[in-house]
Amino acid sequence: MGVNEQTKILLLGGGALGSIFGWRLQEGGCFVSVICRSNYEVVKASGYQIESVKYGNGNFVPDMVFKSCSEAIAKSDFVYDYILICTKSLPNISNPADLLKGCSVSESTVIVLIQNGIDIEKYFFEVFPKNVLISATAYIDTKQTDSGVIVHGERVSLYYGLYRPEGADGEVDAGKEAKSQALLEKLERCLVSGNVDSKILENIQRERWNKLIWNSTLNPISVLSGGSNSKEMLENPNIRQLVVNAMKETISVGEAVVKMPLEDFPSEDIPDLLIGQMLKRKNAVYPSMMMDYMFKRPMEHEVILHNAIKYADRLGIDVPILKTIYALILGTEAKYLKRAK
Amino acid sequence: MGVNEQTKILLLGGGALGSIFGWRLQEGGCFVSVICRSNYEVVKASGYQIESVKYGNGNFVPDMVFKSCSEAIAKSDFVYDYILICTKSLPNISNPADLLKGCSVSESTVIVLIQNGIDIEKYFFEVFPKNVLISATAYIDTKQTDSGVIVHGERVSLYYGLYRPEGADGEVDAGKEAKSQALLEKLERCLVSGNVDSKILENIQRERWNKLIWNSTLNPISVLSGGSNSKEMLENPNIRQLVVNAMKETISVGEAVVKMPLEDFPSEDIPDLLIGQMLKRKNAVYPSMMMDYMFKRPMEHEVILHNAIKYADRLGIDVPILKTIYALILGTEAKYLKRAK
Repeated sequence: MGVNEQTKILLLGGGALGSIFGWRLQEGGCFVSVICRSNYEVVKASGYQIESVKYGNGNFVPDMVFKSCSEAIAKSDFVYDYILICTKSLPNISNPADLLKGCSVSESTVIVLIQNGIDIEKYFFEVFPKNVLISATAYIDTKQTDSGVIVHGERVSLYYGLYRPEGADGEVDAGKEAKSQALLEKLERCLVSGNVDSKILENIQRERWNKLIWNSTLNPISVLSGGSNSKEMLENPNIRQLVVNAMKETISVGEAVVKMPLEDFPSEDIPDLLIGQMLKRKNAVYPSMMMDYMFKRPMEHEVILHNAIKYADRLGIDVPILKTIYALILGTEAKYLKRAK
Repeated sequence: MGVNEQTKILLLGGGALGSIFGWRLQEGGCFVSVICRSNYEVVKASGYQIESVKYGNGNFVPDMVFKSCSEAIAKSDFVYDYILICTKSLPNISNPADLLKGCSVSESTVIVLIQNGIDIEKYFFEVFPKNVLISATAYIDTKQTDSGVIVHGERVSLYYGLYRPEGADGEVDAGKEAKSQALLEKLERCLVSGNVDSKILENIQRERWNKLIWNSTLNPISVLSGGSNSKEMLENPNIRQLVVNAMKETISVGEAVVKMPLEDFPSEDIPDLLIGQMLKRKNAVYPSMMMDYMFKRPMEHEVILHNAIKYADRLGIDVPILKTIYALILGTEAKYLKRAK
């Protein structure tokens, strides 16, 4: 297959998560360019060394490696079909859409946001209102143990759907909709060819809130209970009860926002079910915020907690636990970022 | 004045706080024995070296120094008038009254509890129902910088009153009451002679809750915001708001328990007033729980948070912030005590 027939992917954020998706998409037949930061030199020279339980071991050599998005677009003599954003979303530090600042992103390029949190799309929608935006949640256990060295477990799932800005209900342009659906399905074919568990969702916001139940609770509580992993938290009855109560707050906000239950079974059963699944895992989980805390990196509290709290305030829903956790996380982060300076 | 005419004080907990009270009581004419733990050898050999802004520098040599209460009582050929308990209250680790286990405490000895938290008296009342119990709150800025070396600032205030067990309302025995009042006043004369700011309160529980407004909020929040001191916390608008909201929860429980306002001005003004006073201080304050956190020592969360939460539950008062903070403190402590092992 020549380059011209290949689906062209530009991957922004070539870390533990991005590299696995890039690898699978390339294996599935796509042309994959990667933008790297800290691991640029290593990846440019020899690609990624990946050790994966699911896929076996491999060496992922991206078709092209760049330092920035503007370099990538300037040096590629074709239009990218998809830009995959696999970075953390830190709007409290800088506008996430600034990642694409200075890049002449074609209006025909689809922007795929593989990020945690709620309302992460608005930053891109404001700058690229004409581009198709795909909102995605990933379930994947992967870490970069050394520059360009990736250790991956068994799971790679991507759930995604079209981003529909708020207030756009009913204003469906049938032609645009059909084109967008075709782009969703084209991405799915690429992912499936790369053997990624892939699911297109009509209501991706429901899925985002579903994932937030976990992220908005175990993530910060893990930091605030002295850096406790999933087992240390959930085997402590006081912390477990706190997690359950915090989850209930997130569920109540999410259900009010998406205007339907977050699951197809009773909502009051969600916390115990999630906790049960977590405790069944062989190894304790170290949530991403805890890793950020340990490495003194900024945490994604704006999109994981604050954006949810802002919805709660707008809708008049009381979320005292989430607000307490949010304030403590801000204080904790301010303290360790100051120390790290 | 011979030993026989002196008021005899046995001080349990010869640390930063206890040593200052012991010193002042001796200066005021009392016979003062001190029970020391970690600093026993130093204090036994040469007493305390004290550097005080208020009192100047001095060497406090206790009249007697012991390793335990039973040793003190066995080796003293007189009955102590007062036993001052100046240790932390950690009923989740062991019964605080165990400090006096094996000591033949005379029924005529008054037990004075200089400790933080709520419901700290019940542990002693259960074991010593016939002794007069004095409940006290101390305001003092003092630390032990090295074994037996004490640095003290400007303030030493002791507020105290008779402990009246719950459900004892109305059952006043006039003879016992007069005797107890006389013992309160005798202690006051000793403290005033030693130039300590001393105040007998009819309703000491109101004062305890008043102090708890501060202790139940800034203390744990300081730990949970990454070890932030008073300025770091209160100059952060998110943390400050959390502190205010948490204080309101403590105030609402305290007022329901003591059945009256905690201050003589509107309760809604208390948080800003306390915070204002704190921010006016020249130096940032490092709350005691934060010091325990830094030195990986157990924290007084049982009497400072849990006992207050138990009152809230009994009275049907919602305290989601205090409950969140309590669970996180338990998780944090479990984690660092495990690491310290």
